Amino acid sequence: MNAEPPERTEPDPAPSPRTDDVVIAVDAMGGDRGVGAVIGGLAQAVAANPRLRFIVHGDEAELEDAIRTQRNLAPHVEVRHAEDVITMSDRPSKALRTAQGSSMWNALESVRTGESEVVISCGNTGALMALAMLRLRKAPEVDRPAIAILWPSRNPTGYNVMLDAGADVRADARDLLNYALMGASYARHALGLSRPRVGLLNVGTEEHKGRSELHEASELIAAAAHRGDFEYLGYVEGSDIPSSRVDVIVTDGFTGNVALKTGEGTASLISARLREAFAYSTFSRIGALFAAPALRRLKERIDPRRVNGGVFLGLNGTVIKSHGGADATGFAAAVRLGCTLAENGFTRRLAARIASGGGSAAAMEAPTE
Amino acid sequence: MNAEPPERTEPDPAPSPRTDDVVIAVDAMGGDRGVGAVIGGLAQAVAANPRLRFIVHGDEAELEDAIRTQRNLAPHVEVRHAEDVITMSDRPSKALRTAQGSSMWNALESVRTGESEVVISCGNTGALMALAMLRLRKAPEVDRPAIAILWPSRNPTGYNVMLDAGADVRADARDLLNYALMGASYARHALGLSRPRVGLLNVGTEEHKGRSELHEASELIAAAAHRGDFEYLGYVEGSDIPSSRVDVIVTDGFTGNVALKTGEGTASLISARLREAFAYSTFSRIGALFAAPALRRLKERIDPRRVNGGVFLGLNGTVIKSHGGADATGFAAAVRLGCTLAENGFTRRLAARIASGGGSAAAMEAPTE
Repeated sequence: MNAEPPERTEPDPAPSPRTDDVVIAVDAMGGDRGVGAVIGGLAQAVAANPRLRFIVHGDEAELEDAIRTQRNLAPHVEVRHAEDVITMSDRPSKALRTAQGSSMWNALESVRTGESEVVISCGNTGALMALAMLRLRKAPEVDRPAIAILWPSRNPTGYNVMLDAGADVRADARDLLNYALMGASYARHALGLSRPRVGLLNVGTEEHKGRSELHEASELIAAAAHRGDFEYLGYVEGSDIPSSRVDVIVTDGFTGNVALKTGEGTASLISARLREAFAYSTFSRIGALFAAPALRRLKERIDPRRVNGGVFLGLNGTVIKSHGGADATGFAAAVRLGCTLAENGFTRRLAARIASGGGSAAAMEAPTE
Repeated sequence: MNAEPPERTEPDPAPSPRTDDVVIAVDAMGGDRGVGAVIGGLAQAVAANPRLRFIVHGDEAELEDAIRTQRNLAPHVEVRHAEDVITMSDRPSKALRTAQGSSMWNALESVRTGESEVVISCGNTGALMALAMLRLRKAPEVDRPAIAILWPSRNPTGYNVMLDAGADVRADARDLLNYALMGASYARHALGLSRPRVGLLNVGTEEHKGRSELHEASELIAAAAHRGDFEYLGYVEGSDIPSSRVDVIVTDGFTGNVALKTGEGTASLISARLREAFAYSTFSRIGALFAAPALRRLKERIDPRRVNGGVFLGLNGTVIKSHGGADATGFAAAVRLGCTLAENGFTRRLAARIASGGGSAAAMEAPTE
């Protein structure tokens, strides 16, 4: 069983390795652990895949210092100085007014101009989405972009896709249809599933359950399943999110964000209780020694750092939001995800898929993913 | 640390024990495990608290058979035969048309007439809520009743209250205010907290986050905190639900149901992964032997059977929904909860509290809970 998203380990047999490089723009500022974690993550990623090149935006002096501590990283990195940083506490509206010239703005520009294929930022999510919508613009037919995340699951890939994890607190039936199309496309590229199973999150699986806008969305998604090349399961429940019943869970950003954080809170409560149980007595502390390898294996299977990276879907460009608290291993996971999506030409294919699902004349000419 | 809801262990020093009995109506039909689990639960409850009396509604022959297998239970139970059962698959609308004479209907009648103080059912939730609203009627000032559940948490009592867990998929600002008042009152009675801390579930804790109806609800709840005798924390997030930051989490029934089932699904994924980790090798299987007492302790701490029982709030009577899959231990937990609420005169006090929070002239005369 593969516990992490598929990753290409062999370089393509291209004549000139240079032309085959994957270029990723990095906003290195704004993370909780400073630029050290970001640069450490780039070094880990380069060690695994030497075709990676980074254009890193942020404080030049800090970045150069951090890069010097990493062997073999410098040839893969170009540093671009930015004066300003958008902080975690800035409201998106304020961030928009003051963003020009910030590391986040410049990193997004790097994707907008086509210089980079993907942008990764560990800064403020709200500001990143607002700036990305301003600079990259929404893809045709998309009214509300979404954030897709990988959720640890019982499926063979080890993950399910859930969206929207919190880009927008509202979604109407048409938005939910787009989320189904975008989520299926993302599951194809990030998890390697040829025909993902899509479910619409509701409070029960019976047809009459839930809010009326969900009934409308369910009909739209069912009608788009053939063109979108996915299997539509109908409604799924919260308990199905980590299950093997479904690959892509579609919901609005309010519900998705609550579900995501509830899952995190539950996992955190259980691991605290597990520690307490093992610390209870001398006998249980001995038990902990014997159990240590098994517990380490468990931790690896559900380590949130291995699936770091919410992907913004529905923009003209691929934007990955790395967790603000990500360490080097976490940031490297976000880079690996960005590389997988860049190599697949994900943004271009996704846009074509949405156009086809919108019921336009282009529907019959959807490119094969 | 007390890992289960407070429970009275000593009988009151009343002159006649008979007049001090707690009478509970039980709808014994419709659970996944049949009447055996229900009757087994009653026997467990009676062994712990001999003041309990039950009026049990359902198939007389089945019930009498099950009661005969339990020593010392018969004197505490009166069986009332009911011809019909409302099944799990019945839609609430169909259940309403055919409900008269069913075990669920008769059990609710027993509370409506004042013969019993609490009703417990392991049948269909939707049908139970629909019938309870029809027969018991909504309490004054309440437009949407809610289902409150106890959620394992890091607080000293071991639990937090969350509502609405799925009575109604919608809730406006006024409903959310009522949920805050009802949830605080429930936390006082079920968990013994004198001044519960109430939080409104949102996608962030900043004031500008989330849907606009939440901003209105937040203002209403803040204004009612003094009269309702609770502390209002403002917004909380999904990760706070199992935390020690808050005692009562208020949300609409759609979000609450998704959160509840997501928490269950996450816990189930982690325990499956834990079993796999311990089954991995001979060494880890030895580890499992040493770890067994610690793991058993963990399981007891987060055992969902110990908090079985969603309570319907906002009706003229206390209705407890036991989980359809509950075994005897689970049903006994629901009975214990029912007994705690009955002894406290919960329904009457809750109604007074809602009236006081509604901003009416009665506000200044709220009785002390």
